[in-house]
Amino acid sequence: MTRVGVCLSGCGVLDGSEIHEAVCVLLALDEAGAGIVCCAPDVPQADVTDHRTQNTVPGKVRNVLEESARIARGHIRDLAQVTASDLDALVFPGGFGAAKNLCTYAADGADCQVNPDVERLLGEMLATRKPVGAICIAPVLVARVLGRLGRQPRLTIGNDSAPAAALAAMGAKHVNCAVDGVVVDEALKIVTTPAYMLARGPAEANAGIRKLVGEVLRLAAPGEKA
Amino acid sequence: MTRVGVCLSGCGVLDGSEIHEAVCVLLALDEAGAGIVCCAPDVPQADVTDHRTQNTVPGKVRNVLEESARIARGHIRDLAQVTASDLDALVFPGGFGAAKNLCTYAADGADCQVNPDVERLLGEMLATRKPVGAICIAPVLVARVLGRLGRQPRLTIGNDSAPAAALAAMGAKHVNCAVDGVVVDEALKIVTTPAYMLARGPAEANAGIRKLVGEVLRLAAPGEKA
Repeated sequence: MTRVGVCLSGCGVLDGSEIHEAVCVLLALDEAGAGIVCCAPDVPQADVTDHRTQNTVPGKVRNVLEESARIARGHIRDLAQVTASDLDALVFPGGFGAAKNLCTYAADGADCQVNPDVERLLGEMLATRKPVGAICIAPVLVARVLGRLGRQPRLTIGNDSAPAAALAAMGAKHVNCAVDGVVVDEALKIVTTPAYMLARGPAEANAGIRKLVGEVLRLAAPGEKA
Repeated sequence: MTRVGVCLSGCGVLDGSEIHEAVCVLLALDEAGAGIVCCAPDVPQADVTDHRTQNTVPGKVRNVLEESARIARGHIRDLAQVTASDLDALVFPGGFGAAKNLCTYAADGADCQVNPDVERLLGEMLATRKPVGAICIAPVLVARVLGRLGRQPRLTIGNDSAPAAALAAMGAKHVNCAVDGVVVDEALKIVTTPAYMLARGPAEANAGIRKLVGEVLRLAAPGEKA
C-alpha cells in the first residue's frame, strides 16, 4: 500500500485548509487504495476568520492540529512526529492556512518563513526522491523550501501574476495552468494544480486534484525513474 | 437549474456536519449542474468537541451558521430565511451536529425536539411534494418531523439496531441498507443512505451519497410523479 501524507493547516479556506480541496484529496487517495496519513503542526493558527463575514475574529485562538483533526475525523498525527520514512508521498491541500499557518507567505511574500517541521519534511522527501503534491496556494511552500536548497521546481498556482512573481522570486519556474490541469516537475517529483486559485466550485477543483493524486501515485510507484 | 438546499449543522463529525459527507454532496450536486443553497440555523452549537481527543471542550461556544460557513466557503444563508419556495430539493448531510444542533436526538432519542426552522422547512418540502435527502444519522430528523405530521417514511440509517429502533418509535419504517446503497420512499420523496454509519472511508461514503444525490435530482425533476 502506498502511504501518502496529507499535511493540513486547519479547517476552513480563510484560516486553514480549504475543505473541499482536502476532502477531494482524501477521496481520490481512498478510491485509489492508498494509505492516508493526515498530519498537521501542533501550533496556534495565525488567526481565526468568521467565514460568513470574512472578518478576523479578535482574540480568538485555535490550534492547527486540533482543527485539522475535523477534516481527518480524528485520524491525524502531529507533523513533528512524521518523517519521510513513514511516507511514500506527501500532499499539501490549499487554503489560506497553507500561507498563514504552514508558512508566513500571506504576510511576508517571497521572504516568508516556513514552519520548521514542514521545511524538515519537505527536505526529507526531496532527499529521498519521494513525490510531493501541492494544491492552490500551497506551491509557495514548496518553492520557498526548495529554493533555499538551491532547487528550481516547475510549479503552477494557476494564472495569477502576483503569486507567480513571488514564486519566481523564490527561485521557482511558474507555469500557467488551467483549472483542470496539473504541472509535473518529473525531475524533482513535484506535482501542482490550481484548484480554488481558479475553480468556481468543487467539481472544477476536483478535476485537477484527481489528476494531481494520480500523478503523485505514479511518481511514488516502486521503480519509478525520474 | 435545479436548486438544492444543503442544510449544515456545523463543521466536524463530532459536533457539526460530517465534513466528507457534506463535501461529497456539494461535489455531486456541482457535477450535476445543480444550484446549491447552503443553509444552517443561526444558533449556538450544543457543544464543541476536540476531534483529536474526542473530548468535549468545556466552556467553548461556537455558532452553527458561522462554522457551517467554513464548508460552504462563505456562501451560506440563515436557515430562518430559507423557504421551500427557494428550493426544488433539500439534503441533510450527517454528523453528530444533525443529532445535536438540528435536533436533540443525541440527548433525547425518539422524544427529541427539532430546531423550529428545520421542522418548518421539512414540513414545507413535504407539503409542496419536493424531495428530501438525509445521510447517516440525519434521517432521525426526517422521521421525527414526518412522524409528528402522521407520516411513516421508509428510511435507513444502515444496520445499527439502536437508532433503527428509535426510528420505529418515531413512526418510521427502517430498512437495512448497504453502505453503497440508498433507500427511496417514492411516495413521500425521501431518500436516505448510511454513509459514515457504515463507511470505513470517504470512498465508501461517497458511493452511497452520489446515488442519493442522483435520486434526489430525479425526484425533483419537473413532471416527476410519485
